[in-house]
Amino acid sequence: MLIDLFDCDGLADLDLVERALRTGVAASGATMLDLRLHHFGPGQGVTGIALLAESHMSIHTWPEHGYAAVDIFLCGPAQLLQAARDTIAAALSAGRVEEKTISRGYGAAL
Amino acid sequence: MLIDLFDCDGLADLDLVERALRTGVAASGATMLDLRLHHFGPGQGVTGIALLAESHMSIHTWPEHGYAAVDIFLCGPAQLLQAARDTIAAALSAGRVEEKTISRGYGAAL
Repeated sequence: MLIDLFDCDGLADLDLVERALRTGVAASGATMLDLRLHHFGPGQGVTGIALLAESHMSIHTWPEHGYAAVDIFLCGPAQLLQAARDTIAAALSAGRVEEKTISRGYGAAL
Repeated sequence: MLIDLFDCDGLADLDLVERALRTGVAASGATMLDLRLHHFGPGQGVTGIALLAESHMSIHTWPEHGYAAVDIFLCGPAQLLQAARDTIAAALSAGRVEEKTISRGYGAAL
Protein backbone atom coordinates (compact mmCIF):
# COMPACT_ATOMS: atom_id res chain seq x y z
CA MET A 1 0.00 0.00 0.00
CA LEU A 2 1.49 3.31 -1.17
CA ILE A 3 0.09 6.20 0.84
CA ASP A 4 0.48 9.93 0.24
CA LEU A 5 -0.30 12.07 3.28
CA PHE A 6 -0.89 15.79 2.72
CA ASP A 7 -1.35 18.74 5.09
CA CYS A 8 0.50 16.97 7.90
CA ASP A 9 2.02 18.42 11.07
CA GLY A 10 5.23 17.55 12.89
CA LEU A 11 7.09 16.13 9.93
CA ALA A 12 10.45 17.54 11.09
CA ASP A 13 10.02 15.87 14.50
CA LEU A 14 12.09 12.68 14.64
CA ASP A 15 10.33 11.39 17.75
CA LEU A 16 6.90 11.96 16.25
CA VAL A 17 7.80 10.11 13.05
CA GLU A 18 9.27 7.26 15.11
CA ARG A 19 6.05 7.03 17.15
CA ALA A 20 3.97 7.10 13.95
CA LEU A 21 5.98 4.20 12.58
CA ARG A 22 5.95 2.18 15.81
CA THR A 23 2.22 2.59 16.32
CA GLY A 24 1.60 1.84 12.65
CA VAL A 25 3.53 -1.41 12.93
CA ALA A 26 1.65 -2.27 16.14
CA ALA A 27 -1.70 -1.59 14.44
CA SER A 28 -0.76 -3.89 11.57
CA GLY A 29 0.02 -6.77 13.91
CA ALA A 30 3.38 -7.20 12.17
CA THR A 31 6.60 -8.22 13.91
CA MET A 32 9.29 -5.54 13.99
CA LEU A 33 12.83 -6.81 13.40
CA ASP A 34 14.61 -3.48 13.24
CA LEU A 35 13.81 0.22 13.07
CA ARG A 36 16.10 2.80 11.49
CA LEU A 37 15.58 6.53 11.45
CA HIS A 38 17.46 9.38 9.85
CA HIS A 39 16.88 13.09 10.42
CA PHE A 40 18.15 15.31 7.63
CA GLY A 41 18.63 18.22 10.07
CA PRO A 42 16.65 20.70 12.19
CA GLY A 43 13.45 21.66 10.40
CA GLN A 44 14.15 19.14 7.68
CA GLY A 45 12.65 15.80 6.77
CA VAL A 46 12.88 12.42 8.42
CA THR A 47 13.23 8.95 6.95
CA GLY A 48 12.08 6.00 9.00
CA ILE A 49 12.08 2.36 7.95
CA ALA A 50 10.84 -0.63 9.92
CA LEU A 51 12.12 -4.04 8.86
CA LEU A 52 9.32 -6.49 9.52
CA ALA A 53 9.15 -10.27 9.56
CA GLU A 54 6.37 -9.62 7.02
CA SER A 55 8.44 -7.16 4.83
CA HIS A 56 8.69 -3.43 5.66
CA MET A 57 7.05 -0.12 6.46
CA SER A 58 8.63 3.24 5.53
CA ILE A 59 7.96 6.93 6.05
CA HIS A 60 9.70 9.79 4.23
CA THR A 61 8.68 13.34 5.19
CA TRP A 62 8.96 16.71 3.47
CA PRO A 63 7.96 19.20 6.19
CA GLU A 64 8.27 22.14 3.78
CA HIS A 65 5.37 20.62 1.80
CA GLY A 66 3.45 19.12 4.74
CA TYR A 67 3.81 15.88 2.82
CA ALA A 68 4.75 12.35 3.88
CA ALA A 69 5.12 9.24 1.71
CA VAL A 70 4.29 6.02 3.53
CA ASP A 71 4.84 2.54 2.08
CA ILE A 72 3.39 -0.51 3.79
CA PHE A 73 4.66 -3.78 2.30
CA LEU A 74 2.94 -6.64 4.09
CA CYS A 75 1.53 -10.09 3.64
CA GLY A 76 -1.77 -9.88 5.51
CA PRO A 77 -5.44 -9.00 5.39
CA ALA A 78 -6.57 -5.62 4.06
CA GLN A 79 -7.98 -4.57 7.43
CA LEU A 80 -4.51 -4.63 8.99
CA LEU A 81 -3.06 -2.51 6.19
CA GLN A 82 -5.91 -0.05 6.67
CA ALA A 83 -5.39 0.00 10.44
CA ALA A 84 -1.71 0.83 9.94
CA ARG A 85 -2.58 3.53 7.40
CA ASP A 86 -5.16 5.15 9.69
CA THR A 87 -2.82 5.03 12.68
CA ILE A 88 0.04 6.69 10.82
CA ALA A 89 -2.23 9.29 9.18
CA ALA A 90 -3.63 10.22 12.61
CA ALA A 91 -0.16 10.36 14.19
CA LEU A 92 0.97 12.83 11.52
CA SER A 93 -2.33 14.79 11.63
CA ALA A 94 -2.81 14.28 7.90
CA GLY A 95 -5.47 16.50 6.34
CA ARG A 96 -5.76 14.38 3.19
CA VAL A 97 -4.88 10.76 2.45
CA GLU A 98 -4.41 9.19 -0.97
CA GLU A 99 -3.44 5.59 -1.53
CA LYS A 100 -2.83 2.84 -4.01
CA THR A 101 -2.87 -0.84 -3.11
CA ILE A 102 -0.73 -2.95 -5.42
CA SER A 103 -0.46 -6.75 -5.32
CA ARG A 104 3.07 -7.99 -5.85
CA GLY A 105 4.76 -10.84 -7.63
CA TYR A 106 3.74 -14.45 -7.44
CA GLY A 107 1.32 -13.48 -4.66
CA ALA A 108 -0.57 -11.18 -7.01
CA ALA A 109 -1.84 -14.23 -8.90
CA LEU A 110 -2.95 -16.16 -5.80
CA MET B 1 9.62 1.95 -9.10
CA LEU B 2 8.09 -1.35 -7.97
CA ILE B 3 9.87 -4.29 -9.56
CA ASP B 4 8.92 -7.96 -9.55
CA LEU B 5 11.78 -10.31 -10.43
CA PHE B 6 10.88 -13.88 -11.39
CA ASP B 7 12.99 -17.00 -12.05
CA CYS B 8 15.88 -15.68 -9.95
CA ASP B 9 18.84 -17.58 -8.48
CA GLY B 10 20.60 -17.20 -5.15
CA LEU B 11 17.71 -15.67 -3.25
CA ALA B 12 18.59 -17.50 -0.02
CA ASP B 13 22.15 -16.14 -0.17
CA LEU B 14 22.51 -13.18 2.20
CA ASP B 15 25.80 -12.03 0.68
CA LEU B 16 24.39 -12.14 -2.83
CA VAL B 17 21.35 -10.08 -1.85
CA GLU B 18 23.60 -7.58 -0.06
CA ARG B 19 25.78 -7.26 -3.17
CA ALA B 20 22.69 -6.82 -5.35
CA LEU B 21 21.50 -3.99 -3.13
CA ARG B 22 24.91 -2.31 -2.85
CA THR B 23 25.54 -2.42 -6.60
CA GLY B 24 21.96 -1.26 -7.25
CA VAL B 25 22.48 1.76 -5.00
CA ALA B 26 25.82 2.48 -6.69
CA ALA B 27 24.22 2.27 -10.15
CA SER B 28 21.53 4.74 -9.08
CA GLY B 29 24.10 7.29 -7.95
CA ALA B 30 22.26 7.58 -4.62
CA THR B 31 23.96 8.12 -1.26
CA MET B 32 23.66 5.21 1.15
CA LEU B 33 23.05 6.21 4.77
CA ASP B 34 22.50 2.74 6.22
CA LEU B 35 22.03 -0.84 5.06
CA ARG B 36 20.10 -3.44 7.04
CA LEU B 37 19.77 -7.10 6.15
CA HIS B 38 17.83 -9.94 7.70
CA HIS B 39 18.07 -13.61 6.78
CA PHE B 40 15.03 -15.67 7.74
CA GLY B 41 17.17 -18.83 8.03
CA PRO B 42 19.14 -21.31 5.90
CA GLY B 43 17.40 -21.80 2.56
CA GLN B 44 14.90 -19.10 3.40
CA GLY B 45 14.35 -15.56 2.22
CA VAL B 46 16.32 -12.40 2.82
CA THR B 47 15.16 -8.85 3.44
CA GLY B 48 17.53 -6.01 2.64
CA ILE B 49 16.81 -2.30 2.97
CA ALA B 50 19.10 0.59 2.08
CA LEU B 51 18.30 3.96 3.64
CA LEU B 52 19.32 6.58 1.13
CA ALA B 53 19.71 10.33 1.31
CA GLU B 54 17.24 10.19 -1.59
CA SER B 55 14.76 7.79 0.15
CA HIS B 56 15.19 3.98 0.08
CA MET B 57 15.75 0.77 -1.85
CA SER B 58 14.46 -2.61 -0.63
CA ILE B 59 14.67 -6.26 -1.63
CA HIS B 60 12.52 -9.08 -0.25
CA THR B 61 13.18 -12.59 -1.55
CA TRP B 62 11.14 -15.78 -1.66
CA PRO B 63 13.65 -18.43 -2.81
CA GLU B 64 10.97 -21.13 -2.86
CA HIS B 65 9.27 -19.17 -5.67
CA GLY B 66 12.42 -17.78 -7.34
CA TYR B 67 10.79 -14.42 -6.72
CA ALA B 68 12.14 -11.12 -5.40
CA ALA B 69 10.25 -7.86 -4.82
CA VAL B 70 12.40 -4.75 -5.29
CA ASP B 71 11.26 -1.22 -4.45
CA ILE B 72 13.31 1.77 -5.54
CA PHE B 73 12.07 5.03 -4.02
CA LEU B 74 14.20 7.87 -5.38
CA CYS B 75 14.14 11.46 -6.47
CA GLY B 76 16.09 11.38 -9.70
CA PRO B 77 16.05 10.85 -13.45
CA ALA B 78 14.44 7.73 -14.93
CA GLN B 79 17.77 6.49 -16.33
CA LEU B 80 19.17 6.08 -12.82
CA LEU B 81 16.13 4.12 -11.67
CA GLN B 82 16.51 1.90 -14.73
CA ALA B 83 20.23 1.43 -14.09
CA ALA B 84 19.50 0.31 -10.53
CA ARG B 85 16.75 -2.03 -11.74
CA ASP B 86 18.98 -3.62 -14.38
CA THR B 87 21.89 -4.01 -11.96
CA ILE B 88 19.76 -5.75 -9.33
CA ALA B 89 17.98 -7.94 -11.88
CA ALA B 90 21.37 -9.07 -13.26
CA ALA B 91 22.79 -9.69 -9.77
CA LEU B 92 19.85 -11.98 -8.96
CA SER B 93 19.92 -13.63 -12.44
CA ALA B 94 16.26 -12.71 -12.98
CA GLY B 95 14.62 -14.50 -15.91
CA ARG B 96 11.70 -12.09 -16.07
CA VAL B 97 11.26 -8.50 -14.90
CA GLU B 98 7.98 -6.66 -14.40
CA GLU B 99 7.73 -3.12 -13.11
CA LYS B 100 5.48 -0.22 -12.30
CA THR B 101 6.73 3.35 -11.95
CA ILE B 102 4.55 5.47 -9.71
CA SER B 103 4.99 9.20 -9.06
CA ARG B 104 4.42 10.15 -5.47
CA GLY B 105 2.85 12.97 -3.55
CA TYR B 106 3.42 16.63 -4.22
CA GLY B 107 6.19 15.63 -6.63
CA ALA B 108 3.70 13.76 -8.81
CA ALA B 109 2.20 17.08 -9.87
CA LEU B 110 5.53 18.74 -10.71
